[in-house]
Amino acid sequence: MSLSVDTPLHPSRDEIELAAVLHALSDPVRLLMVRGLFEVADGRSCGSFDVPVTKSTCTHHFKVLREAGVIQQRQEGTRRVNTLREEDLDARFPGLLGTILEAAGPLPQLTART
Amino acid sequence: MSLSVDTPLHPSRDEIELAAVLHALSDPVRLLMVRGLFEVADGRSCGSFDVPVTKSTCTHHFKVLREAGVIQQRQEGTRRVNTLREEDLDARFPGLLGTILEAAGPLPQLTART
Repeated sequence: MSLSVDTPLHPSRDEIELAAVLHALSDPVRLLMVRGLFEVADGRSCGSFDVPVTKSTCTHHFKVLREAGVIQQRQEGTRRVNTLREEDLDARFPGLLGTILEAAGPLPQLTART
Repeated sequence: MSLSVDTPLHPSRDEIELAAVLHALSDPVRLLMVRGLFEVADGRSCGSFDVPVTKSTCTHHFKVLREAGVIQQRQEGTRRVNTLREEDLDARFPGLLGTILEAAGPLPQLTART
């Protein structure tokens, strides 16, 4: 058997549910990740986040964010790159992401900016 | 022993945490309750909500909302009356509650309006 690169499932724009988005953003670590992805057009890989959790927990958090429709994940070789679905979220729930990120305040030093 | 009427604990305005508020609002039933409390100045008792859950689940949901700082609970005789902490939430996280309620859309028939 070869290693399979699974294609992650994403909800379509219309399938994005408010409760799921709020749940995804209700975890402080996931909120940090989303703040680290904001306005980063090319996205970031899991490994680029300096968050205080193990790699498997990090992977889990990204899965929750993806399944809620908050982020898009794409495979680039061995890296899984994450981008924020800003356009989809703004179309579905105008102003929501921006208001939540504003409420979260400036990004702390905890998350790497690269 | 007599029945004690416990005084529910509420976080102060400054203690209200974004993650806790988002978590409290990430449950569809709790979101319904909050929409039913919006702009109801005098508040509503648990029993006035026509939500598809048992009384004890209803009580639990109100506790989560209270502990997150989303609602205020006061005892009026045997009734516990709930009001939305709109002013505190707006001071702490400007625009957040309104944006979330707007994203939730119009209130369905499920919740009684009385």
